[in-house]
Amino acid sequence: MIEAESALEKLRSISKTSAFNQWLGLEVTAASEGRAELQLAWRREFGQYSGFLHAGIVGALIDTACGFAAATITVEVLAAHNSVNFFRPAVATRFIAQGKILKLGKRQIFCSAELYGDSVADKRLLASGEVILMTGS
Amino acid sequence: MIEAESALEKLRSISKTSAFNQWLGLEVTAASEGRAELQLAWRREFGQYSGFLHAGIVGALIDTACGFAAATITVEVLAAHNSVNFFRPAVATRFIAQGKILKLGKRQIFCSAELYGDSVADKRLLASGEVILMTGS
Amino acid sequence: MIEAESALEKLRSISKTSAFNQWLGLEVTAASEGRAELQLAWRREFGQYSGFLHAGIVGALIDTACGFAAATITVEVLAAHNSVNFFRPAVATRFIAQGKILKLGKRQIFCSAELYGDSVADKRLLASGEVILMTGS
Amino acid sequence: MIEAESALEKLRSISKTSAFNQWLGLEVTAASEGRAELQLAWRREFGQYSGFLHAGIVGALIDTACGFAAATITVEVLAAHNSVNFFRPAVATRFIAQGKILKLGKRQIFCSAELYGDSVADKRLLASGEVILMTGS
Repeated sequence: MIEAESALEKLRSISKTSAFNQWLGLEVTAASEGRAELQLAWRREFGQYSGFLHAGIVGALIDTACGFAAATITVEVLAAHNSVNFFRPAVATRFIAQGKILKLGKRQIFCSAELYGDSVADKRLLASGEVILMTGS
Repeated sequence: MIEAESALEKLRSISKTSAFNQWLGLEVTAASEGRAELQLAWRREFGQYSGFLHAGIVGALIDTACGFAAATITVEVLAAHNSVNFFRPAVATRFIAQGKILKLGKRQIFCSAELYGDSVADKRLLASGEVILMTGS
Repeated sequence: MIEAESALEKLRSISKTSAFNQWLGLEVTAASEGRAELQLAWRREFGQYSGFLHAGIVGALIDTACGFAAATITVEVLAAHNSVNFFRPAVATRFIAQGKILKLGKRQIFCSAELYGDSVADKRLLASGEVILMTGS
Repeated sequence: MIEAESALEKLRSISKTSAFNQWLGLEVTAASEGRAELQLAWRREFGQYSGFLHAGIVGALIDTACGFAAATITVEVLAAHNSVNFFRPAVATRFIAQGKILKLGKRQIFCSAELYGDSVADKRLLASGEVILMTGS
């Protein structure tokens, strides 16, 4: 679909402008109105002291999946609040974050996201989170 | 003081075991019972799309300041939940995160942290956050 | 189904032991493994200063829907954390809260809940929230 | 001081317009620029199933202390998000909630609040929380 195609292109070009996303090697793998999916391949330097994915990277994935879900619809947004639930140690060779809009307001956009490990099939949820974004106007 | 000295040493040696903290260049600059301070020098690859400190790095600083505050007292902890308030765009040449324990329970430790920009003097708060940690036992 | 029937009976008998739930007139209207639904009829004394449902009552509904979802499976639980997103002014003649378990751990149970106004059909979400519960053991 | 006096009067007159606050018997006991204190005497109908103060009432106290702290400065505000940490079972004959503004923005006000039991002296913290309020404009 053209629409999803262009949402994907839009998010990929936004992601290129973030130096941190570039360093991570974050890939935008799907997008549609109000939804976005990101993937990240594990690298050793993402680890916390036990070698699990660092909470900061988990948070970055949740935050970016939410921000990108909003960006499929709006222009500039800025996070005002986020929260993350850590369900189990985040260990995988590849991480998949799926974000969506919960409520699109004029001034605020509420989004949520889920983080999975490799096997998309068994959908073992590693973490979930929510982000409140402020619109530019 | 010997106690603070040894808390500082403990946190620095924990931080060395986290590949992500090493990549960030995170410095543990102060520690006492139930409290920890971290510093991070700005680098271009920490930026989100507007060049501000990426929400994921803000979250990593909040999370680590909280985890390290707890680690001055306990052994192994794992984050179950965190939340971050973003008060203003995080722009500075140096970031300072101060974490402390709010409530030390047997099974859960509640911590909070604040993130400041360079000028410690004017204490301009960039972000604040909370983390719930589970103890190892 | 016998199972759902007995879950419903269990929750109704728990609800009777809460003086606040009794004052509210909270009804348990559905239950199954890991899920619970509550209903509350609007009364004038539930209002905040603009006459909308008070944030405290919104929170009580989210919290109880989550606690009851957990109680379909476990015995005693106690809330450690909750958070609520308020999407729009909570105005309705009847409120419906649906809670479910996100992650059932040994020591922690993560739940989420959604709050709707009267028209279940159009599912206009008034609020959503999350609760982290500690198990008794 | 006249200022604190008038802040107190303002909050008391707002509280009178909330039917739920009236039912609770919520008292506004102190106020100054960006700060508010509430008190609530225990009544049996505030209890959850173990007889502790119901999480909904804890949340209502946190939410109202935050909203009232903001109302000392601004006009109409509406909660967009709140979160509560429950540190221990809320048992007391009198509850004291103290709220303050963390960050006063044009469109958003971030507040935090703490809940204590009777003995203000020993300041045993029962719960703490945060609220994000949207300004009317």
